[in-house]
Amino acid sequence: MSKKAVVLLSGGLDSATVLAIARSEGYESYCLSLDYHQRHRAELHAAENVAKLLGAAAHRTAQLDLSMFGGSALTDNAIDVPQEPTEGIPVTYVPARNTIMLSLALAWAEVLESRDIFIGVNALDYSGYPDCRGEYVEAFQRMANLATKSAVEGKTITVHAPLIDMTKAEIVTQGTALGVDYASTVSCYQADDHGHACGVCDSCRLRRQGFIAAGLADPTRYADSARNT
Amino acid sequence: MSKKAVVLLSGGLDSATVLAIARSEGYESYCLSLDYHQRHRAELHAAENVAKLLGAAAHRTAQLDLSMFGGSALTDNAIDVPQEPTEGIPVTYVPARNTIMLSLALAWAEVLESRDIFIGVNALDYSGYPDCRGEYVEAFQRMANLATKSAVEGKTITVHAPLIDMTKAEIVTQGTALGVDYASTVSCYQADDHGHACGVCDSCRLRRQGFIAAGLADPTRYADSARNT
Repeated sequence: MSKKAVVLLSGGLDSATVLAIARSEGYESYCLSLDYHQRHRAELHAAENVAKLLGAAAHRTAQLDLSMFGGSALTDNAIDVPQEPTEGIPVTYVPARNTIMLSLALAWAEVLESRDIFIGVNALDYSGYPDCRGEYVEAFQRMANLATKSAVEGKTITVHAPLIDMTKAEIVTQGTALGVDYASTVSCYQADDHGHACGVCDSCRLRRQGFIAAGLADPTRYADSARNT
Repeated sequence: MSKKAVVLLSGGLDSATVLAIARSEGYESYCLSLDYHQRHRAELHAAENVAKLLGAAAHRTAQLDLSMFGGSALTDNAIDVPQEPTEGIPVTYVPARNTIMLSLALAWAEVLESRDIFIGVNALDYSGYPDCRGEYVEAFQRMANLATKSAVEGKTITVHAPLIDMTKAEIVTQGTALGVDYASTVSCYQADDHGHACGVCDSCRLRRQGFIAAGLADPTRYADSARNT
């Protein structure tokens, strides 16, 4: 029987690479996306597409309106997405988002009797988000192994963060080798309805620099306005 | 300025008591309930009512359909709620529910700039649920303090579980002293639409025994069928 894993899939470059890695390691992948009323739906459509392209066993999208709490440029349209790099943790940080997504993955993993969760967090190109650091992932895993019926029965959970110490260039190099079609992924914080990227937000900048550093053509579908920047 | 706390409020006996404790400690209470498509809506109505009665600053109900994962008698109507005590962790356990609820509380706390979360878990009368133990709560707090922007900026979070080592009798005694109207709370796993309790599920049994042990009248509104048991 193949091993089951729950893979958190945002529809962006990092999580698509993680799905390809999980598959290459022999996991049957149950992909989970979160519709948290983010600025655009394009990344959710991308997630669905990526799950199919990379042969996921299943893909589900949980609905949870994080705009009820606000506090982020990604859930509150009154806060603009920065067009330039900023000092400190940026306003695109969504309070507790990774903790919420990992909690949902933990619930599904327990029901599936899976002992493995994959998440595409990255400590180098992480925009300063606290919940993208290795020590955070380790603390979540420790907590998870006290939280569930499966864990107290001895079936411990591993939270895999294979990108944690990789540069964006290393990520796109590995993903390309594993057959990820990055044109199908959407990383932009403010993509348009067709999934075209703005080219100027933090996420677009990091992604573009990754392809340049890797010496790979950037397949990102940019908006017309972005091509002139 | 008063201190703000996020209080997880299910509408049951324990969380109502926790809200009363938080208020008695001077916290301005922001109550959070979770509509996870549990068997009945009565506890959500109870939560709303209890929040008002105990002077909460705000009350919000997050919508998250945990029946998408299944695996519990509380989210899957195909699994019956046991009418007798069972061995081991019962089927009413909802995978990762407390972790999900604490994660949502963490998100709201960060936006509110609150450093305190209250949860009504209890290690004695806990029906064997793994996510009701002190070591679990401590592990969640450790993780939370690596997860958020506030925490990395030095504003650490405390997860308060004031009921953790109390018996049900001690809980109802303290709550009664703090003015909790337990007739407004619903603990039953399968209450009817009017909030009438079945009297036979684990949760009803523990609650009833608590009032008896405390020497207090049981104000629970039971269904007609329960009165004959």
